[in-house]
Amino acid sequence: MVHPLFSPEIKLMLEEKNAAGMREFCESLHPATVAEALDDEFTPEQIWEVISNANIRTQASVFEYLTPAQQVLMAEKARPQMGELLTKMSHDDRVDLLRRLPGRVTEAIMRLVDEADRKDIATLFQYGEDTVGALMTTDYAWLPGTLTAAEAIDQLRQQAPDRETIYYIYVLDDPTRRHDGSLSPRRLLGVVSLRDIILAPRHALIRGLMETDLVTLRHSDDQELVAQLFARYDFLAAPVVDDQFGLLGIVTHDDVLDVVRAEATEDMQRQGAVGPIAGDYLEASFWQVWKSRAFWLCFLFILQMGTINVMAHYEGKLEPKPGAGVDEVSQTTTSLAFMVVFIPLCLSVGGNSGSQASTLVTRALALEQVKVSDWFRVFRRELLMAAALAATLGVLAVARTYFMTPNSILEKVPPGAIWHLVWVVTFAVMGICLTGAVIGAMLPILFKWWKGDPALMSSPFIATLSDVLGIVIFFNIVKLFF
Amino acid sequence: MVHPLFSPEIKLMLEEKNAAGMREFCESLHPATVAEALDDEFTPEQIWEVISNANIRTQASVFEYLTPAQQVLMAEKARPQMGELLTKMSHDDRVDLLRRLPGRVTEAIMRLVDEADRKDIATLFQYGEDTVGALMTTDYAWLPGTLTAAEAIDQLRQQAPDRETIYYIYVLDDPTRRHDGSLSPRRLLGVVSLRDIILAPRHALIRGLMETDLVTLRHSDDQELVAQLFARYDFLAAPVVDDQFGLLGIVTHDDVLDVVRAEATEDMQRQGAVGPIAGDYLEASFWQVWKSRAFWLCFLFILQMGTINVMAHYEGKLEPKPGAGVDEVSQTTTSLAFMVVFIPLCLSVGGNSGSQASTLVTRALALEQVKVSDWFRVFRRELLMAAALAATLGVLAVARTYFMTPNSILEKVPPGAIWHLVWVVTFAVMGICLTGAVIGAMLPILFKWWKGDPALMSSPFIATLSDVLGIVIFFNIVKLFF
Repeated sequence: MVHPLFSPEIKLMLEEKNAAGMREFCESLHPATVAEALDDEFTPEQIWEVISNANIRTQASVFEYLTPAQQVLMAEKARPQMGELLTKMSHDDRVDLLRRLPGRVTEAIMRLVDEADRKDIATLFQYGEDTVGALMTTDYAWLPGTLTAAEAIDQLRQQAPDRETIYYIYVLDDPTRRHDGSLSPRRLLGVVSLRDIILAPRHALIRGLMETDLVTLRHSDDQELVAQLFARYDFLAAPVVDDQFGLLGIVTHDDVLDVVRAEATEDMQRQGAVGPIAGDYLEASFWQVWKSRAFWLCFLFILQMGTINVMAHYEGKLEPKPGAGVDEVSQTTTSLAFMVVFIPLCLSVGGNSGSQASTLVTRALALEQVKVSDWFRVFRRELLMAAALAATLGVLAVARTYFMTPNSILEKVPPGAIWHLVWVVTFAVMGICLTGAVIGAMLPILFKWWKGDPALMSSPFIATLSDVLGIVIFFNIVKLFF
Repeated sequence: MVHPLFSPEIKLMLEEKNAAGMREFCESLHPATVAEALDDEFTPEQIWEVISNANIRTQASVFEYLTPAQQVLMAEKARPQMGELLTKMSHDDRVDLLRRLPGRVTEAIMRLVDEADRKDIATLFQYGEDTVGALMTTDYAWLPGTLTAAEAIDQLRQQAPDRETIYYIYVLDDPTRRHDGSLSPRRLLGVVSLRDIILAPRHALIRGLMETDLVTLRHSDDQELVAQLFARYDFLAAPVVDDQFGLLGIVTHDDVLDVVRAEATEDMQRQGAVGPIAGDYLEASFWQVWKSRAFWLCFLFILQMGTINVMAHYEGKLEPKPGAGVDEVSQTTTSLAFMVVFIPLCLSVGGNSGSQASTLVTRALALEQVKVSDWFRVFRRELLMAAALAATLGVLAVARTYFMTPNSILEKVPPGAIWHLVWVVTFAVMGICLTGAVIGAMLPILFKWWKGDPALMSSPFIATLSDVLGIVIFFNIVKLFF
């Protein structure tokens, strides 16, 4: 997707100060392509020099496609240009940018912006990150319901250049005056698609064409809800309304795609026991990443310390009783210390089967394929599945312990007890596999029921729990057979 | 998102055979809402009874929003209706449905479909699953370049009802005749958005309005490419062309959202050591799921068997030399068997830090934040990060082993060697943490370089590798200190 061919050409144009060439380059290609060609290899000053040859609308489009880090650098370098650029940027993208800039830069730039834009920015600025408000843009297309289809098209022609989308048009009421004299947002009456306007007879009233059974969002809704809504309804955009059904803004399909990707990344990171990391892997702050990883590593480490106590508790029992003289009872027949060589193998099974189950269930919860109320169906299914998987592993465990146990271990097995060894390993593997899978499947559901994020029940967390339980299972099976 | 209120109302309408009510219900609500209200609680026969009151276009829309499983049931129940419905369904959705039906049902239904639709279905049928061809729809809007803006709008008015989208209009050449006399697909000359047509003067030629610098897809491209393309360019749709730039179809934004979710699910499942599972968690076939889980569990189990050999190799060395009389050297001072109680703790650290690193790197590769050529930057970063994390865990390890080692273990520590124990555990934890993180970060990149899916380097796989290495590290550190 990178165009290595552009870069020497751009360098040449910069050297020759070929303004016409640079304008042509910016205006003839897709802004995303221009941004990509410029992003990696050029300094902020050079990028300004290239794009400033294009018209202001193209400049804004290219700027929007630069990486956030690059945008910040460029904004710091050329505040005067930023004032004009901001007026042409999409309303949600410019607020994202201003959020990232240091306070003094934001202030300096805001002084260059006219009243209306400044007010719009302030409105969007107030919404919390990861909410619908932060995704929302205020440059939607709207019409009064009293126009005819033909008049509507004429009106849209005026609005089109400045609107994020003109394919969904929002039909709004007249504004009403609040008690304090200010105007409240116009109430949303319906939505009409440009397709329906085009299809309609010229004199049809917009009011008659509009859809009034609306799916709306609140500015405080979580981003994740937007993703689910768009996936379900195949929207191009969805309106955000206040309590009085006043239209605050719209969320468009391109932002939703980014949200879906970001939410999936967040879930995967949680699942891998990393606190969510903002931004690119290579660009994220080292200490930020350290914090989100160290927290989980330490938490899991402390949890896992339980294995020391459990191991210590059982380990003593494997050795000959201190009371019994070592000469009387030969060590090789009573010490079962050799059994510990099978512990890492047996424990790992619980971690693996648990990781599978928790991954499947967590993702199914995120996609709403499974609800908390389905817990029993999940439990039954995982129990059966775990049994089937345990049986499979059991066969392997029998084969491995019977045929391939190292000689140094076999020497220590009490005479005639080789099948005891085989059954211990096999039953431990099966028991731990079952435990891991059931914990892995049920904990995410339990956690969701407690209103937590099920992805927090990460694979390593499940592995840690199943390790502690696994040691108990293992030694109890040893006790049973020896 | 579910509307429990609809269900009693629908039941009543069914009892009363209230045709007008059912039509009103289907036609006034969003088809996704209608489908959701019907999907869970009603039989295929009842769903047919409700929707058949609506016009055929609404029937098709509602049908498209039903779950795949429900669609199959309904198609099997009412083949005659399906013939008509298929003609109104979107071209990509109907092919998806036919793929899922048993061969004899597909044949029976295909006999009811007219020639043109049959040909279209056959064309789309040939493309492989998970390719662009399988996502593509053939009901795009197109125009010759010679029309004026005003004529174009008139033409679109004719096309609009049947097209998946009319917001991007493809400008096509006249068809050319192949050597064998058949017509080749019309060549794609450019794309014009409906917004640009609306904005343009009435007499402007489409040819002059269209964008000719096109980003196109091939039908054999992987779905994942589509996701990247749409995320980068914020498209509503993208054209799919053949070698001669003939337009085969388009991919629309709503399908891309589904792809992004499906790809994320697949990656997460791989990451959790599950072969990708088709369809819903609760609806997926038990044996299919068993197969994709058993494969990985068995593979990891066999790999983990290495720990037995490594443990056996070192375990012998912890015990008193067989040559030395047990009476001469008291057992408590020479047996280090008690050290094994620390093994599960130390090993788990490698699994956890490895899972973090592999999750982050795999996702960064999928989002193209990291390329294979960045391997050294990733290596350096993970090495530093792992060192910082290891230091953190080291502090905890010192504290835990010095202050909280169970008495039953302390008794067995050779006199004066308590700090030896502390350092063994601490250095083992740090070494294993470092190893796990570096393996976890580098293996996905290595695997991608070998043209594999980096997500196959799952958390459990990394944990297994780091277990085997971890045991070696652990015992070597024990040897060093005792």
